[in-house]
Order: sequence, then structure tokens, then C-alpha cells
Amino acid sequence: MLTVDEALAEILRSVRPLPAVCTSLGDALGLVLAEEVISETDSPPFDKSLMDGYAIRTTDVVDGAATLKVIEEITAGFVPTKTLGPGEATRIMTGAPIPGGADAVVRIEETEFDADSGTVQLRSSSLAAGANLMRRGTAMKWGEGVLPVGRELRPQELGALAEMGQHEVAVIRRPSVAVLATGDELVPIHQTPDHGQIRNSNETMLAAQIRRSGGEPVCLGIARDEQSHLREKISVGLQSDVLVLSGGVSAGKLDLVPAELEAVGVRQIFHKVHIKPGKPVWFGVLDPSREDSSTAETRRRYVFGLPGNPVSSMVCFELFARSAIRRLMGLEEAAPRPVRARLGEEYLARGDRPTYHPARLDWNDAGPVVCPVNWHGSADLRATVKANAMALFPAGDAKYAAGEILDVYRWD
Amino acid sequence: MLTVDEALAEILRSVRPLPAVCTSLGDALGLVLAEEVISETDSPPFDKSLMDGYAIRTTDVVDGAATLKVIEEITAGFVPTKTLGPGEATRIMTGAPIPGGADAVVRIEETEFDADSGTVQLRSSSLAAGANLMRRGTAMKWGEGVLPVGRELRPQELGALAEMGQHEVAVIRRPSVAVLATGDELVPIHQTPDHGQIRNSNETMLAAQIRRSGGEPVCLGIARDEQSHLREKISVGLQSDVLVLSGGVSAGKLDLVPAELEAVGVRQIFHKVHIKPGKPVWFGVLDPSREDSSTAETRRRYVFGLPGNPVSSMVCFELFARSAIRRLMGLEEAAPRPVRARLGEEYLARGDRPTYHPARLDWNDAGPVVCPVNWHGSADLRATVKANAMALFPAGDAKYAAGEILDVYRWD
Repeated sequence: MLTVDEALAEILRSVRPLPAVCTSLGDALGLVLAEEVISETDSPPFDKSLMDGYAIRTTDVVDGAATLKVIEEITAGFVPTKTLGPGEATRIMTGAPIPGGADAVVRIEETEFDADSGTVQLRSSSLAAGANLMRRGTAMKWGEGVLPVGRELRPQELGALAEMGQHEVAVIRRPSVAVLATGDELVPIHQTPDHGQIRNSNETMLAAQIRRSGGEPVCLGIARDEQSHLREKISVGLQSDVLVLSGGVSAGKLDLVPAELEAVGVRQIFHKVHIKPGKPVWFGVLDPSREDSSTAETRRRYVFGLPGNPVSSMVCFELFARSAIRRLMGLEEAAPRPVRARLGEEYLARGDRPTYHPARLDWNDAGPVVCPVNWHGSADLRATVKANAMALFPAGDAKYAAGEILDVYRWD
Repeated sequence: MLTVDEALAEILRSVRPLPAVCTSLGDALGLVLAEEVISETDSPPFDKSLMDGYAIRTTDVVDGAATLKVIEEITAGFVPTKTLGPGEATRIMTGAPIPGGADAVVRIEETEFDADSGTVQLRSSSLAAGANLMRRGTAMKWGEGVLPVGRELRPQELGALAEMGQHEVAVIRRPSVAVLATGDELVPIHQTPDHGQIRNSNETMLAAQIRRSGGEPVCLGIARDEQSHLREKISVGLQSDVLVLSGGVSAGKLDLVPAELEAVGVRQIFHKVHIKPGKPVWFGVLDPSREDSSTAETRRRYVFGLPGNPVSSMVCFELFARSAIRRLMGLEEAAPRPVRARLGEEYLARGDRPTYHPARLDWNDAGPVVCPVNWHGSADLRATVKANAMALFPAGDAKYAAGEILDVYRWD
């Protein structure tokens, strides 16, 4: 049976990023760059004032004081027409280009303008060449690499792209991820279950997890524990980039999922991982057939069979399916990254497998602190709403003292 | 001039959460509950098996061993029809209801079925009453409060709501947030700037920040530094819940924003905060007029005038506008919460105001470590793409040693 790390390595080895598409900046938040971005501009594009005040020549200033003739006023969006000579100043606004001859800007608060004489008096405490202005190309030079391939686009990257005029950008497209819950005990969530039945809560939960991971969920409803119905639903699911099933992967008589997946050509990469909850988790890939090669369907598809209990589904999604989605989106760091946190209280861990236990991660002045929440196992989704993370306890029964360091995986 | 904390307190005092709407679970991710959720169901709704195996009576088992007659097989979705008597067992699947008389489930791996005699042999290492089953109502009881008002809906809350059959939920609606950049130096991002002009990158950046904060951005383009044009754009912006302007709030001659806002009835709450970058930031509210009281427009609107330099806009949005959006959405903890991180290297801080400096926050085994990135001030957006956080340096020139503790605000 694979360890979690081995399973993650198999997933990341199997998953190839999706193709690039061209997207407007307004739709690119959270997507990943498919091409390096080279600046086609200097930033700022001209020597620019960082303050409202007066552009001056520092050689005119003695002990921070000077009286200068105001020869022009430049507002933002307009350009200076006069070069400063000795004893001259130009009134300037934030963002406006610096006139020729000037080498500093004095802030308006440190000046007094005399309208009668058309002069300005400076009283500046500290003034050196370059004060309160920004030289052309200081932040970014034409031809310079600004954003690398694989960079996730956050507000600041989008702002930088907009500044450079790159109003469309090559990104990896968002993966479509189908969700299919299996099991004769399931009814749709708006329906009242009979005795022995439960609502299909996994679809709602997994669709939200998919959206939070960056994927586009496609909800396929419930597949009965019956071969032809399951196969039909699976074939619809395989039209998406990823198919996530829940249920039907453990040792029960009606656990048909692995066999049906293999019957339609999905190649098993692994089945069962040394983990609690979620041991029966299944992963496979479907490679395009030769006949498909002339069509658009030439991409590889990925299938996760998650165990049906809600916490097992949730945990296996966060560890495995999310990592695949992130890699499909082009993120280099696709696997979950733990925070090292101190255990807030003594804890008795039990289990023959490494356990990802719902927990609360908080911060105090000494750093992150984690406390496991009361949890009744893989069917107890209620415990997860009290939690914001999962704490990893290694396999084996052991008493952990308060203050011991654990790996913790954030859920929010 | 207000401190950042005072400004935040003014914002949170002024902002009232938006009204509730009823939303399907599929659209509720990231929204906030407007009503407490009381469970209308027990979870699990019946005593349920957590494993595939056999339901048994522990009194029949001696030293983990027994040979029992198999009287029935229950698959998930079906219900037991027979009560176990002494010496009897029922084959059961994960999730199925436990038959009467049974008090534990033995895992299939610890059993051997003999088809000829219709009996099953158990060899279980540890078996106590209650093993591998979950009693009705263990996770959640009918009538119990499960999710409080103000709870943000994550995948697990949505899953819990689905389990209870609450397929629609009362949430605070998503605020609409208009973005209006001001300044004659600005051109749209697809246009090539003339000398002295720059592209309106703030709209793209702020729209992404709004979306990430949970708001719905409404982009209004560029307002010229001219009274009637600005006033017309402002009146459109005031149709949204929040109006975020950039530029036009500092001391320049064409900084018309505060006056125009007050002219249309927006009441100033504060102008200028003791912060770098972003000192000129402006905040005000518009209360509905009496004539509006019969219409839908009876809600308060909120206006932020952010300084025009991109890093000033970005930082003031993260501190102030985002806090207002989060409070509008009903989140109790609306203001940004710092992480306490060790400075990774010696740093010389300069400035007469508390400085929010673009920085990289990373983690090592000892906890969070922060390093300021090279930054040329409020016009240098490029610096922020190398950063994932802002480090707060108190006012005053000072040399900080590596290892000193700083408050750091995450951007991702």
C-alpha cells in the first residue's frame, strides 16, 4: 500500500498541465501564466514626481532654503514644456513628468508661493538630488522578464500586466471537474431520506472544494450501484478533465467503481493508501485512444475514486484531487504544504495508519498552535465545521504532550 | 490624523452588514450565514456501520473468536428486517443500518464466510461493544444548533447543510463594489499612453482585490479631473454598495474627489491616516435621503478615496476597503489579522509614519520568517509581485536586527 507521499508523487508524475488559452485580465484572477511576461515598457515610463510640490535644482538650495521663480505648472497627464534654469522651479503634481534640469521635488507642505512675485520659498529639512521623484525604468525596464511561467495571477500581477498594456494574457485554462456520487443509499439533497438512506451531501461539498481549488465543478448527481447506470454516468464524467467519484471503492460487494473504470479504459495508478480516513482511495488516468487523435479529445483525463464517507471524501480530495487540479492549472507547488504547529494540549492518538485529524489551528505570539477537535470518525462531517485544518498524527498509538510539533494542513 | 487602528475602528463602526437573501447551496461558497442553522435531523439518522463486515453481538464472542450463523445481508440503502438472536450475524456494508440486537461490527478482513454451512468465523484482535458502528445522533442531534450566524460557508459547512437537507440557506448577499479611477493622466489599458500618461492599471488590480475579498466588482473606467464628469461618474458609482475611487484625494490642485463626494451628500468620516504608503486615504458614508425611503435605495453606501499611486491603492484597499467589504458580508472578524513573524535579515527602516512594506513571508521549522523586498515606494507596483505580504515597521528611523518580531499581513 502506498504512503501518502508516494501517492502524491504518483499523481504529480501523471498529471500534465492543461493547454494555454488567451484571457482578458478581468477573467484571469487565480489562473497561472503559460508564458513568461517580458516588459514592453519602462516603469515609470518617464522621470516622475512622487509628490505634489515643486520640481527644483538642488544646486539652488542652501541649507534647505531657496526662493525660486515659478516658470510653469504641470498637472498629471500634461508634459513640461520648459527646462529649468538656475533659480527656477516648476509647480508639479503627483505622477507628472519632471521637467528637464530638475533633480528633485520639494513637497508642497515645505513651500510657500507668493502670487505677486510669482516666486516660491522653500523650507525643506532634508533635500538631496533624487528626492521625491522616481527615474524612468526604476521599477521595471523594457525587455526585462517580469513574471515567470507558472506564476499565479494575483491582484498585483494583474495590475502590473495592465500597467504594461498586456490586456490579454496566456494562461492555463481552468480544469473542468465532474462530481459523481455513487450508492443506492443516496437521495438528492432536497429529498427526505427513507430509513437506511442519506442525502448526497458529498456532491455539494466536493463541488465547493473543486471551486476553491480553482476547478470548474460539473455535478452529475447520483449513480446507482448498478453496472450499466454507473458506466453511463462515468462516460459522461470522462468528458471533463477530471472525474471525482465518491463511494464504491472499498471492499463491499457493491463497490463496482474500480472495475467499471477499468472496463472503460481508465488505467489504475493506485488503489488504497496508508491513510486514515480514506484508505480505499483510487486514482487512475485515461489516455486518449488513437481514433480520438484527430479530435479535440486528445488530452489525458484523470479519475479519483474517493471513499464515500464524507470526511474521507473531504480529506482525500484536499490531499490528492486538489493537488492534481493545481498541477493541471500549471502550479509548480501543487501538493499541500504543511504548517509546523505546536500541539495546544496533550493528545492520545490511536490508529494503525497516519491520521489526518480535524483540528483548529490558531496563532498566538509564539506562533501556530493546533488542537484536534472531538471527532467520531469518517462519517462525522460535523466535526469538520468546528475545524479549520487537519493535524497529521503518524501511525501507532501514542500520547503526545502539549507543545510537541505536528504537521498541520490548513483548510482555509 | 488617525492611526490605522483608529481608522479601522471608524470603518467597522460605520458599516452595517447587508440584508439576507436566500441562496442555493451551490451559490453559497464564501458567503456568510444570516440565520443560525438548527439541525432538523439526527446524524447519522440511524445506527450505522462504519465498515464492510458483519454485525454481531459481542456477548457471542470469546477471545475475539466466534462462529455465527449469517441470517441476512444488508446493502447500503436497504434496511435490516431481522433482529439478531444469540449466535447470529448479519452481513453489512459501510453506511448500512445496524440490525436490532447487534452491538458491534467486525471488519470483513477479520472474518471467513463458509457458504456450505451459511456461517461466518470471526478472528478479531480487539472487539468491544460499539466497535465500527456509529450510533444515531452521535455527530449531530435534532434541534441542536449546528452553525451560528456569521459563519462563513466553506465546503464542510455546505456539506453539513446538504446532509440536513437545507438546500437553500439565508446568507448575506455579496456586496457590489464600484471602481472609479480618476486623473487626466490615465488612459485605458489597451491604449498606448502618450508622454506624461500612464495606463489605468488600478482598475484591473482593484477589481481583482474586490473579487478576492468577496465583493462583486463594477468597473466604471476613468473620471477626468473635471467637476461635472467626476460628479456624473460618482453618481453611477453610488448605485453600488461601495464605491472605491483611486486618485484625486491628496493636496494637488486637481484633487477634486473629497469636495465632489461631499457635494453629492457623502459624509466624510476621515481624511488622511498616519500610514505609509497611503496617507491621503479618504472614507465616507452616504445615508439614504428621506425621499428614498419608499424605494429599494434605503441602504447606506460607503465610499473609499484611495490614493492614486498603485501600491498606495493596493495597501489601503487591503487594510480599509477589504475590512468594510468583509463586515458588509457579515463577518465578525473583518479587519486584517497579522501573523507574528521573525525578520529574516537586518533591515534599516526609515519614515515618519508606520510603513506597510512589501515583503516575502516564508515558513521554516522555527515558524514564519519575513524579508522586506526591494521597493522604490508607492509607484513601484513591480515590488509587490515579488511579495506575498506586507511587513509593518513602526514610525521612525531604526535598524532592526535579524530575528526581531514584526506584524505581517498576508496578501495570499
